[in-house]
Amino acid sequence: MKGILLLAHGSRDPAWRAPFERLREKVLARQPAALGENVYLEHTEPTAAVAAIRLVDRGATAIEIIPLFLGPGWHVRSDLPRLADEIRSAHPSLIVSIAAPIGDADAVLDAIAGYCLRPE
Amino acid sequence: MKGILLLAHGSRDPAWRAPFERLREKVLARQPAALGENVYLEHTEPTAAVAAIRLVDRGATAIEIIPLFLGPGWHVRSDLPRLADEIRSAHPSLIVSIAAPIGDADAVLDAIAGYCLRPE
Repeated sequence: MKGILLLAHGSRDPAWRAPFERLREKVLARQPAALGENVYLEHTEPTAAVAAIRLVDRGATAIEIIPLFLGPGWHVRSDLPRLADEIRSAHPSLIVSIAAPIGDADAVLDAIAGYCLRPE
Repeated sequence: MKGILLLAHGSRDPAWRAPFERLREKVLARQPAALGENVYLEHTEPTAAVAAIRLVDRGATAIEIIPLFLGPGWHVRSDLPRLADEIRSAHPSLIVSIAAPIGDADAVLDAIAGYCLRPE
């Protein structure tokens, strides 16, 4: 079974986390058996490596890291491969993949465009 | 007429800009008369202040800054009010507003949840 890590930047401000946690709730509402965890690069726990241990304990045999970034910036291009390698080193039998950033998905951009043009 | 500034962080990497520019294309495809510009906080031109001048020249009487950030972090809470004030100082008759970050919009989070659970 595949687990997913919903990866965001992280912030010292706890209010910042709210949309990412709501996103996880939406994922679990759609697919209650999904193995999904919020993870962060900086300032906010847990890290991807720590959450991967939890997902493996719950039965994940593969893990996909989903970058909650619109653009493929430094964090996506440099930090994510490193995180994936860390997880692979700790769990050699696990299949670890990195999804394209959410800004690659037409449906996501379409929803944002709808928000930009929402009625007053 | 209201102009919109699609505000993103900015990056030294030109490839990073692509989804933000596609978003603007999607906005204009839905509403060809919309006054919409991509603007950035760092590393990438134009700034909000410069793009606001363009929108005013094209007839905007109000401007909404839309933060293309999921969470209300430092950039949203601190930089945006400052940018809005800069635009107001330069164009005293303009109505300048700041939208909630895109992570506030259920439709946006729903689209991201769909991406997270897309079939392999």
